Amino acid sequence: MQKSRLEAFSDGVIAIIITIMVLELKAPHGDQVADLAPLWPVALSYVLSFVYIAIYWNNHHHMLHTVTRVDGLILWANSHLLFWLSLIPAATGWLGHNFLDPVPTAVYGVTLLMPAIAYVLLQKAIIHRQGARSVLAKAVGGDLKGKLSPVAYTAGIVFAFYQPWVSIALYVLVAIVWLVPDRRIERVISEA
Amino acid sequence: MQKSRLEAFSDGVIAIIITIMVLELKAPHGDQVADLAPLWPVALSYVLSFVYIAIYWNNHHHMLHTVTRVDGLILWANSHLLFWLSLIPAATGWLGHNFLDPVPTAVYGVTLLMPAIAYVLLQKAIIHRQGARSVLAKAVGGDLKGKLSPVAYTAGIVFAFYQPWVSIALYVLVAIVWLVPDRRIERVISEA
Amino acid sequence: MQKSRLEAFSDGVIAIIITIMVLELKAPHGDQVADLAPLWPVALSYVLSFVYIAIYWNNHHHMLHTVTRVDGLILWANSHLLFWLSLIPAATGWLGHNFLDPVPTAVYGVTLLMPAIAYVLLQKAIIHRQGARSVLAKAVGGDLKGKLSPVAYTAGIVFAFYQPWVSIALYVLVAIVWLVPDRRIERVISEA
Amino acid sequence: MQKSRLEAFSDGVIAIIITIMVLELKAPHGDQVADLAPLWPVALSYVLSFVYIAIYWNNHHHMLHTVTRVDGLILWANSHLLFWLSLIPAATGWLGHNFLDPVPTAVYGVTLLMPAIAYVLLQKAIIHRQGARSVLAKAVGGDLKGKLSPVAYTAGIVFAFYQPWVSIALYVLVAIVWLVPDRRIERVISEA
Repeated sequence: MQKSRLEAFSDGVIAIIITIMVLELKAPHGDQVADLAPLWPVALSYVLSFVYIAIYWNNHHHMLHTVTRVDGLILWANSHLLFWLSLIPAATGWLGHNFLDPVPTAVYGVTLLMPAIAYVLLQKAIIHRQGARSVLAKAVGGDLKGKLSPVAYTAGIVFAFYQPWVSIALYVLVAIVWLVPDRRIERVISEA
Repeated sequence: MQKSRLEAFSDGVIAIIITIMVLELKAPHGDQVADLAPLWPVALSYVLSFVYIAIYWNNHHHMLHTVTRVDGLILWANSHLLFWLSLIPAATGWLGHNFLDPVPTAVYGVTLLMPAIAYVLLQKAIIHRQGARSVLAKAVGGDLKGKLSPVAYTAGIVFAFYQPWVSIALYVLVAIVWLVPDRRIERVISEA
Repeated sequence: MQKSRLEAFSDGVIAIIITIMVLELKAPHGDQVADLAPLWPVALSYVLSFVYIAIYWNNHHHMLHTVTRVDGLILWANSHLLFWLSLIPAATGWLGHNFLDPVPTAVYGVTLLMPAIAYVLLQKAIIHRQGARSVLAKAVGGDLKGKLSPVAYTAGIVFAFYQPWVSIALYVLVAIVWLVPDRRIERVISEA
Repeated sequence: MQKSRLEAFSDGVIAIIITIMVLELKAPHGDQVADLAPLWPVALSYVLSFVYIAIYWNNHHHMLHTVTRVDGLILWANSHLLFWLSLIPAATGWLGHNFLDPVPTAVYGVTLLMPAIAYVLLQKAIIHRQGARSVLAKAVGGDLKGKLSPVAYTAGIVFAFYQPWVSIALYVLVAIVWLVPDRRIERVISEA
């Protein structure tokens, strides 16, 4: 089975997820600059989620690049990842309208944690198919960034009930770390 | 006529269907854990429908894999399938907000039954084009799973008016059976 | 310039247009069979528009098949067609909620007439690029169906103010005529 | 890394952005011609934004045509452009419902200015990858249109607080200038 339709379907779903979030950014009822002010937590949540989903698309792009054929396990691990990504818009809307409230801040962290776990499972499914000596297996070997992110999300979920600002700061920090493109795979490929 | 645009269009429509369902999962008005509780029937309906649509995409992927050229009949049988799939989000929303009520539970079963029938018609259209000795014709020969699913949906529709829990259990059961990827086609291909 | 991205973009836009129409098909508030009854004009409008957009996608598919290279004029003629198609969901929603009312029935006819004109302009742009002796130019030569459809839509718009049922009947009739796949191009190709 | 998925993802996001704008064009509550009248500012805003996004897609199409390989910087510059484009629907809805009001008119100008800047940054990222002697570098050398557009948007933002009609006229004027397809790249390619 070729990977082209898997990529096309994933691109479609991710494109829709990243775009329907903007539907939460409703036009204000008034027409003054002051009417825009209450939008900033919604806008900040939108930017953060946009960056996260773009990071997932970028890394998905890199990871699939190392794949030549897909099997049923990879198809389902991929759908599983898309499922968790699809919850981000709802969590983003809730956070945006209840910024720094403990529960929405924690729930947002959960919707970041779950696709991170699903991404690791997809990685494992691909390595399972390719074998432990594959390019991807080498690339993720010493994957510090991938291992620390779930820890940071979990910390954010816990902090949400004490210091929600710390949670938001952690979510932003992890996004910034990931914004640096994933050179691991690129490096291992070029070494191969 | 090539199948590439048929695949691309189907991928696009299915990607949108699977994603717009999440718009039903509206952010709660409050900001407490208790405000999330009423969401569980909506969430369960969403998960179930997500899995069903992912199953259709997976099987569509497998089935089209055996196709080399498409004709007008296949194009229309495919649009017919997409039409019935497009009704799943509305039925999912209705079920989610009226969980276990007889009519929404039955209507949800109808929106599972109709694409199952449309899928069989698409299969027939492809076999009609390819001939009775094609890979697909052999693969669907002893298709127990495909033949029992409509029976299970019909039973679910009937049970909705007596024991709606049985209906939901049947819908979940069929989904689990299909989650096992369709190895029939893979097997026949590898034997060929 | 290659046609592949033009096809991909058109497929994306048409897939979204055909799918967002279903958002009008809101889940009823009650949970009885009777609560479904008022949905039938919405459902009928949805089916009709779904068929029309699927027809456009099918014919677009056929027409682009004869194209090898695209220029700026074709790109814009295509965007122009997509623009008019994008208005169909709004007109469908209005018709569905005000079934057989003169103005919504007439406006629906206008949103069928405009893409029909835009489609002819796109055809002309392609023939302009390919030359009058191209496959497409031959295929559309005696295009009775394409020439009568705008007449039928115009009649539907006029009848809306006197006998709206006649308008709906005309819209349905034209859809049925087009459901027969466009064998003209297929025939000329196979003769070539 | 190949450019095909970058194109596919961009096509998907742009297709969704151009289509979800139509969701603002809500069916009127009444069923008279008079009920359509209040829609004209919404419709005009929709047409203007549709044209702008189609222009971006067209030019993106042309620009990527000159690209053979993409790197992380190009991926992010592209996501950055998509981010700003994704704000156009919200600004369009606000402008449509508050036509000629100073703040919405200015904000609309901002959502035109930002993707224009992002487009230039994407151009720079591509030229950085290809080198200063590339086809694209030559093509944008004397890019009067690209340099004047941000000036016109900025003027529109300022005029919004004094003569909003002038702002709208400027936005329309720039769109008309860009509607002429970008022959610069085509010319340089054909000279090469």
